Amino acid sequence: MYISAEAMADWDKQYRAAFVNSLTGYKPANLVGTCSAGGQENLAIMSSAVHLGSHPPLIMLVLRPDVAPRHTLDNIRATGHYTLSHVHETLIEPAHQTAARYPREQSEFTACGLTPAYREGFAAPYVKEAFLSLGLSLREEQRLAINGTHMVIGEVVWVSVPDNALRDDGSIDLYRSGSVALAGVDSYYAPQPLCRMAYAKPDLPPRRID
Amino acid sequence: MYISAEAMADWDKQYRAAFVNSLTGYKPANLVGTCSAGGQENLAIMSSAVHLGSHPPLIMLVLRPDVAPRHTLDNIRATGHYTLSHVHETLIEPAHQTAARYPREQSEFTACGLTPAYREGFAAPYVKEAFLSLGLSLREEQRLAINGTHMVIGEVVWVSVPDNALRDDGSIDLYRSGSVALAGVDSYYAPQPLCRMAYAKPDLPPRRID
Repeated sequence: MYISAEAMADWDKQYRAAFVNSLTGYKPANLVGTCSAGGQENLAIMSSAVHLGSHPPLIMLVLRPDVAPRHTLDNIRATGHYTLSHVHETLIEPAHQTAARYPREQSEFTACGLTPAYREGFAAPYVKEAFLSLGLSLREEQRLAINGTHMVIGEVVWVSVPDNALRDDGSIDLYRSGSVALAGVDSYYAPQPLCRMAYAKPDLPPRRID
Repeated sequence: MYISAEAMADWDKQYRAAFVNSLTGYKPANLVGTCSAGGQENLAIMSSAVHLGSHPPLIMLVLRPDVAPRHTLDNIRATGHYTLSHVHETLIEPAHQTAARYPREQSEFTACGLTPAYREGFAAPYVKEAFLSLGLSLREEQRLAINGTHMVIGEVVWVSVPDNALRDDGSIDLYRSGSVALAGVDSYYAPQPLCRMAYAKPDLPPRRID
């Protein structure tokens, strides 16, 4: 089926959002943990984390302008710290529930039945129930004039990963860490390993590692 | 296992890259198709597409600075057009092979055994063998000073999606479109549907749609 820009512009808002949110393909499912200067905790599910570089280790998050009171962004600005916790299968329901518009004074940890945990010297809470979590320190923030989204760039300052998920070459086996994938705004998936591919070279055919 | 920023900084470059590339979680697997002003075609696998907004439909791509001759970026600048084609299982080997450093005058379509196809009035080729593809028109480009990566924002101007993958609510069933997911730099996965979750509301518990 061919769909033009004109057709998309004519669609109902929710139908269009469901469609366009699906176009990039599979997305990561992360819980972003923050805390205000006054100690009010916040947790929000996000699927917009992107790898930006490895040295220094940088991750970009895109924050939507229409998530009315932007508790997460305010907290990141206030403390400079935030965490990502990978969602695994049994966390899907509480993780998705963090998207509800709770008032600022209500912690999504409490409301959704998840436990905040802290690392010494790091202001933002991570999700204790998660198998893989990491701490980020704010490096740069920018509002994109094109549609008012915010791009937040952080440097990875600590990582907690299950021992058996760390492969000999440094890569993380996300099947073993139990991480799930998201599609669109509401569809959760359990990825099954297909193959690993060797580094591609012009003079060699594609080769599978395993 | 707890890993500090200092530990990561001390690691071997390739080990660190494999690790940090895994941290965001699952990523989309897209082939980016472009063409130079002179008609030289280029195809490159990328896992950095992010949804930026639905109205207008905007997608951001992050392009690495170290992909030596940046054929893709040059072509996007030259024509203003580029495509994304979702990788499905039988496309994994040729798709991964597009990452090899072919000279500018060699088309990755030809080198990797994929077929370029065109839409009238649109300068960039898509992958004929892909089930889901879309065309983007360049809206904004920015070099990020923090590490020299390029952020490229495009507006979706056409989409081709399998009829049976478009759900009644506008979302795309990526399992039916056969799309695969990527982790790290070389691991391919077939995501299996777990559940869809209803729109989260503060006064209702999490509810599954199916």
